Amino acid sequence: MITLLTDYGHDGPYVGVCHGAIRRIAPEAAIVDVAHTIEPFNVVQGAVMLADAVPYIPVGVHVAVVDPGVGTSRQAVALRCADGRRYVGPDNGVLMEAATASGVEGAVALASERPASDAGSTFDGRDVFAPAAARLALGTPLSELGEEISTASLARVSVPESERLADGARAMILGRDGFGTLQLAARPDLLDRLPPGRAVAVSGARAEGSAVRGRTFADVEPGELLLYIDSFGHPALAVREGSAAERLGLAPGDWVHIRTAPLPESERD
Amino acid sequence: MITLLTDYGHDGPYVGVCHGAIRRIAPEAAIVDVAHTIEPFNVVQGAVMLADAVPYIPVGVHVAVVDPGVGTSRQAVALRCADGRRYVGPDNGVLMEAATASGVEGAVALASERPASDAGSTFDGRDVFAPAAARLALGTPLSELGEEISTASLARVSVPESERLADGARAMILGRDGFGTLQLAARPDLLDRLPPGRAVAVSGARAEGSAVRGRTFADVEPGELLLYIDSFGHPALAVREGSAAERLGLAPGDWVHIRTAPLPESERD
Amino acid sequence: MITLLTDYGHDGPYVGVCHGAIRRIAPEAAIVDVAHTIEPFNVVQGAVMLADAVPYIPVGVHVAVVDPGVGTSRQAVALRCADGRRYVGPDNGVLMEAATASGVEGAVALASERPASDAGSTFDGRDVFAPAAARLALGTPLSELGEEISTASLARVSVPESERLADGARAMILGRDGFGTLQLAARPDLLDRLPPGRAVAVSGARAEGSAVRGRTFADVEPGELLLYIDSFGHPALAVREGSAAERLGLAPGDWVHIRTAPLPESERD
Repeated sequence: MITLLTDYGHDGPYVGVCHGAIRRIAPEAAIVDVAHTIEPFNVVQGAVMLADAVPYIPVGVHVAVVDPGVGTSRQAVALRCADGRRYVGPDNGVLMEAATASGVEGAVALASERPASDAGSTFDGRDVFAPAAARLALGTPLSELGEEISTASLARVSVPESERLADGARAMILGRDGFGTLQLAARPDLLDRLPPGRAVAVSGARAEGSAVRGRTFADVEPGELLLYIDSFGHPALAVREGSAAERLGLAPGDWVHIRTAPLPESERD
Repeated sequence: MITLLTDYGHDGPYVGVCHGAIRRIAPEAAIVDVAHTIEPFNVVQGAVMLADAVPYIPVGVHVAVVDPGVGTSRQAVALRCADGRRYVGPDNGVLMEAATASGVEGAVALASERPASDAGSTFDGRDVFAPAAARLALGTPLSELGEEISTASLARVSVPESERLADGARAMILGRDGFGTLQLAARPDLLDRLPPGRAVAVSGARAEGSAVRGRTFADVEPGELLLYIDSFGHPALAVREGSAAERLGLAPGDWVHIRTAPLPESERD
Repeated sequence: MITLLTDYGHDGPYVGVCHGAIRRIAPEAAIVDVAHTIEPFNVVQGAVMLADAVPYIPVGVHVAVVDPGVGTSRQAVALRCADGRRYVGPDNGVLMEAATASGVEGAVALASERPASDAGSTFDGRDVFAPAAARLALGTPLSELGEEISTASLARVSVPESERLADGARAMILGRDGFGTLQLAARPDLLDRLPPGRAVAVSGARAEGSAVRGRTFADVEPGELLLYIDSFGHPALAVREGSAAERLGLAPGDWVHIRTAPLPESERD
């Protein structure tokens, strides 16, 4: 069982070629594509999504490739964890939100297996991570894949810190899904001062709106904005049967301010 | 054999997490992704696409999730059919175009298997439908998944009715594919009064065009508009080696009027 | 082992229905989706991508469908090659860049297996290519799938020719990936007169830019334009941690001119 999470997107043969590279070594592997639509180079988004998804996925070899440093000197690593999971990817933090929860026990720096050819060294998913994952899935011990390195030296991401305020909260938008739902980079307790049922004001750089602090879509009417804890435990903004991203004109990387009191007249558009 | 059809799109980990949730219970399941790009919340589009696809797919457990009512009191159901197929999804009609053709013999209301946690109750694909499908694939009888309900009580969708006119037809656009081909919400006999070979006028709210009523792309030149019966048996509009959606400025939900006679001068743009 | 490469995109059930059509005949087949986002009808792009991907994929049955002639009289073919690979698709050249490298030994014209029905004859992926691939995967010899045809008669694509110039090179943009990296329709020796380390000027119809002729992303700073040999051996343009397509306003089909000398004042925007 091998899972893949990348920012490769679906334009191009990258994902399919990684499947092929795995099957050349482990023809019988079950491969699950967790997601390939991480925002390009957004290591934080990839790291959080991997950590969110892993608890729902069987124990296996989990590859994550969001890798602005491909072709530079950043290391490629494989990790062995207390819960039996193995992680494979670049040493830039994309693995560590998930791996820390799994209990990292050991790490190796992967040697490149790039074939000698004219082709460039910019596709470590195919040349390094997929072969390593396939070998781990076949039972090769971590120690045979490279030199052991200190787990303390592994890079970690820094998730932008949300903030609880006297009258609400402030957080960065981490992700946007196909429905236009906006996931905040925060834990559920960010909303502790905003108990379900309350009306809240949501304001970003370019827009504001009124939302209901609810538990689920049944708490609002179709077309209304809902502030809730999403299915992975993050605060999120959604429009029932609509798109919060379009309603609020917000995208990943933007910050939102959530308040219980209506916005003062002077701050409205 | 489990198939999935949803409106989850590919932005986000929803599809991959459903695969994971299935494999936690049925590690050996063969999973086929029929489509995950149903227009968000478009239950009719999902219902028709499922019914179109099922005859070409082996008998198995067919999950469909287009679910504007997730998190409300709508029921989750599993159905047992005369042809051996089982269907799993929300009770909003998305299953019933296909299941009716399969011959519905029994239905149960699924109990939620959501883990007790902070995470919200807005992802029934992962928490309810995938586990139920995995159990059915392993041989668990329908009756062990929930309480039996009357098949007569199951919700059905109402597909917007196309209309045969003296000089042609009128129909809603149901779907648009990656080529820009527009599928009409109608059966092939809608075009009975427009036999192959005829020139027809196609007009929508924002555009009109001339098409040939043909059987296949060989009946028109590259760049010409073709009115034909598509590979799933629906009337459709396509431009050979081009995009009918761009040519006509039409999208799902729009209506088109098809006539044999050229449009009168006064009705043209 | 069956692989699929098409221009079907992910809007619509085409890919999923092909998987279903394969599994109706070969339920245990391992199916790898190489890519389904070939630009619609771009046979050259599909042919080159298939040839690029195949060396990284296990020997199997390789289906490619980029098929502007579907529904016309073009033939459907299956090929047997010296390296054990089989290829299935339309006889329009999409298979031949890869198959020639595999050493074509025999070819048959596939008979259509379309079911008698109202449904149109515009989905040969489902009706012709998937069933043929499934039979080949099960061990059916090529000769049982149709009448033998001469391999000399098989159509080939003509890849637009790039050109080495005294001071650089000229080439067409073949593909664009999800990062906005632009792949040129050329071999690595196109850049022989531009050794790594040099500054080059890149100009297209609508834009120009300065790039570094390097080997990998480490050779430029984040945000800088890199001219390099990509991971499949093609010259390519990329912005480190950014999008070359957006920077240069270029898309597949456009031509670029690459020169060592800075552009003269008069040719700048």
